[in-house]
Amino acid sequence: MDSALNTPWLKTASKRRRYLVAVSGGADSVALLHLLMEAGFKNLVVCHLDHQLRGRESSADARWVERLAAKLGLTFEGAKADVKQLMQTQGESLETAARMARHAFLAHCARVHRCERVLLGHHAEDQAETVLWNLMRGSHGLKGMAESQSITVGRKSLELIRPLLTVRKAELIAWLLDRGLAWREDASNAEPIAVRNRLRNEVMPLLEEVSGRDVVASLARGALDQFELNAFVAESVEQAKVLDPQGRIHLPALRKLHPVLQRAAIKAYLEDQGVGGIERELLDRALGLMDTKSDPAINLPGGRQLRRRQGRLFVCSGGL
Amino acid sequence: MDSALNTPWLKTASKRRRYLVAVSGGADSVALLHLLMEAGFKNLVVCHLDHQLRGRESSADARWVERLAAKLGLTFEGAKADVKQLMQTQGESLETAARMARHAFLAHCARVHRCERVLLGHHAEDQAETVLWNLMRGSHGLKGMAESQSITVGRKSLELIRPLLTVRKAELIAWLLDRGLAWREDASNAEPIAVRNRLRNEVMPLLEEVSGRDVVASLARGALDQFELNAFVAESVEQAKVLDPQGRIHLPALRKLHPVLQRAAIKAYLEDQGVGGIERELLDRALGLMDTKSDPAINLPGGRQLRRRQGRLFVCSGGL
Repeated sequence: MDSALNTPWLKTASKRRRYLVAVSGGADSVALLHLLMEAGFKNLVVCHLDHQLRGRESSADARWVERLAAKLGLTFEGAKADVKQLMQTQGESLETAARMARHAFLAHCARVHRCERVLLGHHAEDQAETVLWNLMRGSHGLKGMAESQSITVGRKSLELIRPLLTVRKAELIAWLLDRGLAWREDASNAEPIAVRNRLRNEVMPLLEEVSGRDVVASLARGALDQFELNAFVAESVEQAKVLDPQGRIHLPALRKLHPVLQRAAIKAYLEDQGVGGIERELLDRALGLMDTKSDPAINLPGGRQLRRRQGRLFVCSGGL
Repeated sequence: MDSALNTPWLKTASKRRRYLVAVSGGADSVALLHLLMEAGFKNLVVCHLDHQLRGRESSADARWVERLAAKLGLTFEGAKADVKQLMQTQGESLETAARMARHAFLAHCARVHRCERVLLGHHAEDQAETVLWNLMRGSHGLKGMAESQSITVGRKSLELIRPLLTVRKAELIAWLLDRGLAWREDASNAEPIAVRNRLRNEVMPLLEEVSGRDVVASLARGALDQFELNAFVAESVEQAKVLDPQGRIHLPALRKLHPVLQRAAIKAYLEDQGVGGIERELLDRALGLMDTKSDPAINLPGGRQLRRRQGRLFVCSGGL
């Protein structure tokens, strides 16, 4: 196998364990499936959700993936989702509704097949688009998808694994063509991902043209650097032990830290307390609580407060 | 003065000291000049380089800026640059040649007026474009312009200061309009900045439209976070004291560090040794030298080597 395609995950993962493989029928997930087979993975369940967003084409994709699984001697698990109805009942965007449907389907597959590991075909171009999208939205810096990510759907844990995250789309296509392997051309557009399509078809080509550089590689490199930096900061916060035995922030310990670690420590504490939507501006106000002459509390999103008392910072419900 | 425009630099800098102010005649630098006057700065030298790239328009800009300086009772320093010829003799791009000419002119102004401090009109949109450009080129992550930056031109040191780096362009325009102050509409395009113009006129509007977000703010926030993170890493490297008395990297000390600090320490050391173009891939190979079973040297750009001997890493000329 081409060395770029034989990623560290494919080389080192147990080939006997069971994995769910999410296969849309598009080049990315079809290449992933064949690569897994070629690498010697045996216990694979091919999972396909028909989003029903392109009429007959959607059903044809589903049948095509089911036949592919049969040809490869693999178990197939398929379902249909009424994404448009879900959108209306949940009051979510089409994209969010589709993601919810996919996650619910994968959780179903995980229960039926007693397997929490889900392999996804995301590649370097998907990663670059994600990095750019997070950057444009602000508040995340350079943040991409993780190669391995735990999510919870209802009460079911899933481990999403992306073995091809560093592989270029063109390499996957070339590999498929080289082996005469087929895929469903439009199936990768089966999901309603309007923003992603605009990033892919308009933004990325413009960035590449203006810069004359390989922007996919630049974004991936930036995200990797940032990921490592964040991990280093998280470890440094962990080592600094700023929480007291009751799990509140111990101010004298916090004060000794570098401002970068102070912000990271407060952010980690607030996240542990279930506070969402933590912006830089909130962290800066929280840092202000270190000054004992300042007001002893600041408001948090969701009506709670971060309060200073007896040399500690802690979250409590608002009011006195 | 509007509080957003009265930036920390404008509030805290000494108003009696002399400053060179680079004024193209465009809204940004004209706003900077008037803001400085309104804030009470007295000892300003208005510096204008005619890039001669737009024929009569260029000369008209120069005369306009000279008259503005006279009206404000300020010293004027002007010159013409033959950027196209410089481009040919130096074999540089138009943009690089123009920057070299500007820096040479500012160094000349600094000598004549015995003042190394140069104020520039860069604002938040310029910053966002710079961040995006560095990101697209790779190798810098989210890196913007510094509010204060030391450069050396020939043997002359200059301190470039950007008091308006956090101010939005629209705020500057509104402020000028509010006071009935004029500027030269096309003068901000006086410099040959083809890539920057494409970023401004094509890329940024597309990013804003696709995301529906304030991408300028997102990029600026990301760059600020990254700047602080980098400063924290640099301080941590400093504290780790990995250099021996001879200024070589002490391997036992290096090995104790987190990989993020190991890379940063090697990068800082190589930069001190005048090694340019340090990529991630080079740092990863340098990290490999910590393994005493590996080859004892790696090649550096420019024909030198980073070598391991007696528990130290150091740069030396290539060969044995």
